[in-house]
Amino acid sequence: MGEFDLIARYFSNIGVKRTDVSIGVGDDGAVLQVRDGYDIVVTTDTMVAGTHFFPDVDPRALGHKLVAVNVSDLAAMGAEPTWLSLAMTLPSADESWLAQFAAGLHETAEYYNCQLIGGDTTRGPLSFSMMAKGQVPRGKAITRAGAKVGDYIYVTGTLGDAALGLKWVQGQCEISKKHQGHVLQRFHYPSPRVALGQALRNTASSAMDISDGLAGDLPHILRRSGVGAYVDIQRLPMSQALKDSCTAEEAMHLALSGGEDYELLFTVPENRRGSLDVLLSPYGVPITCIGRITGAVGKLELKTGEQPYAYQHQGFQHFL
Amino acid sequence: MGEFDLIARYFSNIGVKRTDVSIGVGDDGAVLQVRDGYDIVVTTDTMVAGTHFFPDVDPRALGHKLVAVNVSDLAAMGAEPTWLSLAMTLPSADESWLAQFAAGLHETAEYYNCQLIGGDTTRGPLSFSMMAKGQVPRGKAITRAGAKVGDYIYVTGTLGDAALGLKWVQGQCEISKKHQGHVLQRFHYPSPRVALGQALRNTASSAMDISDGLAGDLPHILRRSGVGAYVDIQRLPMSQALKDSCTAEEAMHLALSGGEDYELLFTVPENRRGSLDVLLSPYGVPITCIGRITGAVGKLELKTGEQPYAYQHQGFQHFL
Repeated sequence: MGEFDLIARYFSNIGVKRTDVSIGVGDDGAVLQVRDGYDIVVTTDTMVAGTHFFPDVDPRALGHKLVAVNVSDLAAMGAEPTWLSLAMTLPSADESWLAQFAAGLHETAEYYNCQLIGGDTTRGPLSFSMMAKGQVPRGKAITRAGAKVGDYIYVTGTLGDAALGLKWVQGQCEISKKHQGHVLQRFHYPSPRVALGQALRNTASSAMDISDGLAGDLPHILRRSGVGAYVDIQRLPMSQALKDSCTAEEAMHLALSGGEDYELLFTVPENRRGSLDVLLSPYGVPITCIGRITGAVGKLELKTGEQPYAYQHQGFQHFL
Repeated sequence: MGEFDLIARYFSNIGVKRTDVSIGVGDDGAVLQVRDGYDIVVTTDTMVAGTHFFPDVDPRALGHKLVAVNVSDLAAMGAEPTWLSLAMTLPSADESWLAQFAAGLHETAEYYNCQLIGGDTTRGPLSFSMMAKGQVPRGKAITRAGAKVGDYIYVTGTLGDAALGLKWVQGQCEISKKHQGHVLQRFHYPSPRVALGQALRNTASSAMDISDGLAGDLPHILRRSGVGAYVDIQRLPMSQALKDSCTAEEAMHLALSGGEDYELLFTVPENRRGSLDVLLSPYGVPITCIGRITGAVGKLELKTGEQPYAYQHQGFQHFL
């Protein structure tokens, strides 16, 4: 089977059929209709075998994750996900693997109401680059640059679970039977906070998604906004699975630096804080206030109650 | 130097600064303003070391080509190029290599009035995926699907020169001194037909760019349009360099199957054919009528004058 047949077979109908796609897969490019009065938001994430996933990963989980991590970036900007492009580099065409991978892409793209509108397939070392596009009412995108001194800092969900799942998959820790399903789910099938991100459009002063760990990601907001922050680590939301499976210190490390949480990190001015609980209650995702923005430009202070907490972030840095 | 410093240094200011980019590099995603009444056109091309380029390629030429091949897809749809995203996978951070590569990207992005608005950098085997976005007045994109029986088939420029350049670089042929510059330029620095593509919006019934060779690409139009075609190979436009460097048969093979031409292939109905020369004269790119669309669905007949020409296309197929 040649390249074009292969693509036609598995990747022509990924996700929903959107009416704003004039031309999808199969031409020199896709043609897309943007709603009048809306901006588009564009994001890119690459996953390379050996760097971002194990070569023996479940292809369905990989398909899910590739869509999820891209959609999570759109969620962090308050955008509604709409269109996906996929650049695939494959060492060979393993039909059953591709069928499973495509199924994972499809399920997740469909769930988030996205359509795969094009891409490119080439031969080479196994890797995938996905580009996700979304729409947001003009000027309403939430950026990393809007945090102001005094704003409250929030995170959604719980932190550290995906990193715990990775440790377990690698045989580096024990997890009791009752928690195994939860941490595997969090590692393989992250849930981007799409509806919640859109709900924050007029309320959050800044936002981003947590992919490299809170202690690695919050500094991006501080740098872009020209502010500082303190975080009370006693407030970091942790699942029972994390608390039961690690020492307190290890749990704290995973919550701060574990990565792959795909929760939202956002700031809210004091005068909009009162409406948050009502605003977000429909989404069924807990939010937790973990600290405040300060004027100590670029400085992230970690505290435990009133005491400073000495901590060195060890997030993943390429090319150090 | 860490990943973020590296990216900030070389890839923050590639191309022009467009006023329709609200948020560029440095946030979860880019935020872009689409003109009211316009559609966006999106395309993706991946280049993998060892598959699409030699590992010792001049990085500046590679930067150029990556932009050019993406912009060529937009040109084929009649779109105006505006924004680029880049997913880079690098085995290591070679600063002088990256500086040269970034310079190549920048020069070409600037020439075509595009801005690099984001991307992703990861560690792994050397490869690049670029996503180019452009704009076209709503409903005016030129697709592969509009060719009708009786339409005339045209190509821009000359065919086979880039493939000849590749052969020469690989030491597979001799080229006289006076032609070396031309074929190297055609191979390393293709010129996408951007202005001409936009000029064809209301005139061409279908279009695509020639990247895999005429004999491999024209069938895409035939399939999508549900038509057939004949091409008179005596009319294929060839440069003096090609004619002087090969046997007649070899030249014909490179013109039909050589690939990497990045010329436009388009069809024009008889009643719009009269205006073509005047319409296209400002662009300084020759066009040549090479055949006509027929009702023999899916069939491409090659003729030399009135005689059938037996030819087996040998374009590059991944995963055969």
